[in-house]
Amino acid sequence: MTEMPKALLFDVFGTVVDWRCSIAREARALLTPKGHAVDWDAFARDWRARYQPAMERVRSSARGFVRLDMLHRENLVETLKAFRVSGLEETEIDHFNRAWHRLDPWPDAPSGLARLKRAAIIATLSNGNIALMVNMARHGGLPWDAILGAEVARAYKPQPEAYLRSCAALDLDPGETMLVAAHNSDLAAAAATGMRTAFVLRAQEYGDPNHEDAQARGRYDILAEDFHDLADKLGVA
Amino acid sequence: MTEMPKALLFDVFGTVVDWRCSIAREARALLTPKGHAVDWDAFARDWRARYQPAMERVRSSARGFVRLDMLHRENLVETLKAFRVSGLEETEIDHFNRAWHRLDPWPDAPSGLARLKRAAIIATLSNGNIALMVNMARHGGLPWDAILGAEVARAYKPQPEAYLRSCAALDLDPGETMLVAAHNSDLAAAAATGMRTAFVLRAQEYGDPNHEDAQARGRYDILAEDFHDLADKLGVA
Repeated sequence: MTEMPKALLFDVFGTVVDWRCSIAREARALLTPKGHAVDWDAFARDWRARYQPAMERVRSSARGFVRLDMLHRENLVETLKAFRVSGLEETEIDHFNRAWHRLDPWPDAPSGLARLKRAAIIATLSNGNIALMVNMARHGGLPWDAILGAEVARAYKPQPEAYLRSCAALDLDPGETMLVAAHNSDLAAAAATGMRTAFVLRAQEYGDPNHEDAQARGRYDILAEDFHDLADKLGVA
Repeated sequence: MTEMPKALLFDVFGTVVDWRCSIAREARALLTPKGHAVDWDAFARDWRARYQPAMERVRSSARGFVRLDMLHRENLVETLKAFRVSGLEETEIDHFNRAWHRLDPWPDAPSGLARLKRAAIIATLSNGNIALMVNMARHGGLPWDAILGAEVARAYKPQPEAYLRSCAALDLDPGETMLVAAHNSDLAAAAATGMRTAFVLRAQEYGDPNHEDAQARGRYDILAEDFHDLADKLGVA
């Protein structure tokens, strides 16, 4: 049995919520009545693919810190162009952009988090901004103790400051905490700061069995199938 | 009926929790076995009285931003001296200082907050730091959507930045939010930033009917007896 950390910090997009199916569904619902018919899954993946390059400009200091909502909106305009979708009002684009505030959790997430919360602090350690995380939590019933991560730390993962400042905000040493994530690169960066690590397999995140995150590629403290399996392996009743 | 704000932001010490009786109880429990017998209520009030001057040094830029836990600990050392209490180990002082993480809520607070949360975002807008607020919420069953306030804003109330940056973190205009507080000065500063205001009477906070906050002294959007009365006046079922 692995010793219980004082805090479990969670990656969110892909680990807690299913961004791909949620975004595809919102895109279809918004654009079909306007006569657009595109590959909705490809649309969601295209929008998401612009996420890392946009943050990289902030991480490299080519651009000052801006919230993810703003990066998502700029990226959406590019994705709409790429899929030849035009004619949306600015307010419609604003609403569409907030689809990220309405992502659905994986089925085990709400009850799994409630169970884990009985044994440790649970908080977000996401690149998503505070408003996005708060609205998503209310939408999906995610019982966070605190919203931490990029906006509080003023640094985007995988920069070490994003992890270290999140632990410091809880007045905990990194070794007293554990990052829970479905992504190998995120867990590697967390481990480098001294955080403990749990890989949760989310095989349906990309829908691609050959994706690099379709299997654990590092040595982690815990490998789990979902949040209830994580609770089991942490000895949470 | 007052229109429902999108977010209710709460002062915490005195408004949500009873710091005076909680601190007096912890002081008595820790120091009585060591042979100390002081006026525990006066001890609690002395410690609290050092709060505003300590923050004022940060507000005036005489000192860089430091978390309230650190100010509380420095103040505790002074209060212990003033009450001629000596001989505590450093780890005992650390534990005593975290009494602020274990403050008990007013009886209506947990259920009142849960009720209000169904209708609006509820978040802290306290000068307390994140770890303090998270641990207090877990201790008292306070179901916050987010921990905001001084540490996230890097500014102590009543500086306008403390209010404005808390609203901005939720991507809301001040007029879409309401500060809930038991203190006239806090509400006046919030109103000056454009926030709406609710005064909640906490007559037992100081146990002094002549205290300046024993009555509402400004014009507020709502006057309430407790959080359920606030919910009633906001039309929350």
